[in-house]
Amino acid sequence: MSTPVVELGRRAKAASQRLALASTAEKDAALLAAADLLVERAAELLAANHRDIAEAEAAGMDATPLDRLRLTDTRLAGMTSALRQVAALADPVGDVIGGWKRPNGLRIEQVRVPLGVVAVIYENRPNVTSDAAAICVKSGNAAVLRGSSTAQRTNAAIAEVVRDGLAKAGLPRDAVVLVDDPSHDAAIELMQLDDYIDCLVPRGGPELLAGIREHATVPVVIDGDGNCHVYVDASADLSRALDIVLNAKVQRPSVCNAAESLVVHADVAPEFLPRAAAALEADGVELVGDDRARQLVSAMGVATDDDFAREFLALKMSVAVVPDLDGAIAHINRYSSGHTEAIVTRDLDAARRFTQEIDSGTVVVNASTRFTDGEEFGFGAEIGISTQKLHARGPMGPRALTTYKYVVWGDGQVRR
Amino acid sequence: MSTPVVELGRRAKAASQRLALASTAEKDAALLAAADLLVERAAELLAANHRDIAEAEAAGMDATPLDRLRLTDTRLAGMTSALRQVAALADPVGDVIGGWKRPNGLRIEQVRVPLGVVAVIYENRPNVTSDAAAICVKSGNAAVLRGSSTAQRTNAAIAEVVRDGLAKAGLPRDAVVLVDDPSHDAAIELMQLDDYIDCLVPRGGPELLAGIREHATVPVVIDGDGNCHVYVDASADLSRALDIVLNAKVQRPSVCNAAESLVVHADVAPEFLPRAAAALEADGVELVGDDRARQLVSAMGVATDDDFAREFLALKMSVAVVPDLDGAIAHINRYSSGHTEAIVTRDLDAARRFTQEIDSGTVVVNASTRFTDGEEFGFGAEIGISTQKLHARGPMGPRALTTYKYVVWGDGQVRR
Repeated sequence: MSTPVVELGRRAKAASQRLALASTAEKDAALLAAADLLVERAAELLAANHRDIAEAEAAGMDATPLDRLRLTDTRLAGMTSALRQVAALADPVGDVIGGWKRPNGLRIEQVRVPLGVVAVIYENRPNVTSDAAAICVKSGNAAVLRGSSTAQRTNAAIAEVVRDGLAKAGLPRDAVVLVDDPSHDAAIELMQLDDYIDCLVPRGGPELLAGIREHATVPVVIDGDGNCHVYVDASADLSRALDIVLNAKVQRPSVCNAAESLVVHADVAPEFLPRAAAALEADGVELVGDDRARQLVSAMGVATDDDFAREFLALKMSVAVVPDLDGAIAHINRYSSGHTEAIVTRDLDAARRFTQEIDSGTVVVNASTRFTDGEEFGFGAEIGISTQKLHARGPMGPRALTTYKYVVWGDGQVRR
Repeated sequence: MSTPVVELGRRAKAASQRLALASTAEKDAALLAAADLLVERAAELLAANHRDIAEAEAAGMDATPLDRLRLTDTRLAGMTSALRQVAALADPVGDVIGGWKRPNGLRIEQVRVPLGVVAVIYENRPNVTSDAAAICVKSGNAAVLRGSSTAQRTNAAIAEVVRDGLAKAGLPRDAVVLVDDPSHDAAIELMQLDDYIDCLVPRGGPELLAGIREHATVPVVIDGDGNCHVYVDASADLSRALDIVLNAKVQRPSVCNAAESLVVHADVAPEFLPRAAAALEADGVELVGDDRARQLVSAMGVATDDDFAREFLALKMSVAVVPDLDGAIAHINRYSSGHTEAIVTRDLDAARRFTQEIDSGTVVVNASTRFTDGEEFGFGAEIGISTQKLHARGPMGPRALTTYKYVVWGDGQVRR
């Protein structure tokens, strides 16, 4: 029997009131206890995962999702390390963000506080269970987690580790709850649990996001597509540009911060593009380009408008040649999904304009797009990477799961 | 002929790109020019308002909304002053909120940037037109404004003042556009203009909010109900408490930061409640209470659960007597709309617990709830008062209309 989603929401809300007031020491103790339990119970966790894997294999799951679903000693060590890293982060709760005094003597303080209950709907990587729980606990939020049904045993075992860690630190176990009803209806119920959920972070593909758009009534922070661009400026160091483009495209093509589009300044395109195309094609990348790109690399296919707008998540890349920096900025702001865009340049003014005018959550100068990531940013882990502008943008660590309240201190002031 | 909403959105989006890069001096010059024009064109503005008023009177509008619709010299002076105050505020755009270096040498900066295009749907007070435009311009956002049809001539004249101010400062006039189609369909179109609107702030009553919940697909920050509480603690200075309760309830009962509910500690209720009831009733306030309150003030009606949850916006107040601080916090967190709650106390620990445990946007110690207001907070004006937790909470000044981007500076880093 699975627990009704509304009951899990109710429990998490109740637990969130205690967690909001928990000391940093209590929260960190819970995360460190969970890290220790993850080590202690490795065999048990791997056994639960073996059962999920066996069932998924029997059901004919493809190699790629099967690999994502699999727990290994290395992955467990990564999860343990993330729990410890998050414990070591600064606690954002209670920070005074600002404060001032009014002419009438009122003192106004803006104080950081937890959101309350954060829900995460995610697909089959089980490390999200401990990563998301860790960031929620650190920021004083209760977590309602809903992983994929194929990872249910693995996720349940990991959630139990975190819940036991909370209990060891004297915090309520229900500060982390896992939805154990694998049905689509349960997911929709979670998206509409307005009384209990303060923020929902969906992490998944287009189907999940379409479901969110159709059904969600709770506040949502979207972890959306990454149609990431690398722009090679006229002044770029071209061998550095080649390293960055190759890394951004091929080091891990299936993730959201991989590059999907290469934009090249016309002045360097004749020298750079044939070299880049040869290197990318040697790594198995299929290129599609605009007319100017195809004049320089004849083997390249035609890029449609849809290609420029697409997150391939595969060894495919669109290529555009632009007359100048303005052209690059216009092209990128037109097609980008607002995730991450990089410029390779030696020109300070070009870097300044690109970082100011590109309307994306993360803008990178002379490095790979692949660094847009909670761990690479130093957050230990991430609850997701926001591609929206409201509330939080880019990799979301503990601070992204807080809000603030104003505290006004008076001595009898009334309004005239 | 009215301009299609989508066309206004397109123009505002185009203008927003220029405004996002405008200097503080340019934006302030636009606001000061608009303030001067508001003075210069006073006769013209009052004449436009007279036509709106005449039409509204002919249509049988009640005295209260008619008063809100009316422009006067005093109100024009207030609008002018708000424009100048907003010009004098710090410009939030470009502030570096945080920054750090990673072990691989990447430097990460978190930089405050405008949201882009902010839409505001509001009811018949014309000052919102200039207040909202000012805060949007100051924070580098374009504004799409949609006032009520009854104020259309007045709003159009005010919007033209701001647009002319923008032009005088060399900024695009379309950074502020007013929807001139008064139809319900036009409002719904605005709520769904995902390609152009980065944030919508609805300011209005339950009908508008129901429309938002049903139709809005753009990101929304809710300016919602204020079911505000005043809690009189056991240790309160009772004459100060009486001043604060009276001010919070009767000084302007029709606004969102007026108090709707009085909560009294049982230890002081026998002394305080009869005094407070007499004073409130002398000011015309109808009281409804729980059993314990009614034992102390027999003339009081019975408060239903709905009364405790209701924003009366009128001379009516619910009263609860609670056994202790825990009871007060539980009662308030149950019924509050998360807007503003005040405690009157001399006890430091009670103040600390109340400010920490009350889950509202603004928590006030020893002052009236009426101070939750952009101008009273020092923002010059406000775009609204958020009752949600995501993105912004409480009175929203220019900073609430910004987001951030991460700028990552490297020298060739790629991910291994």
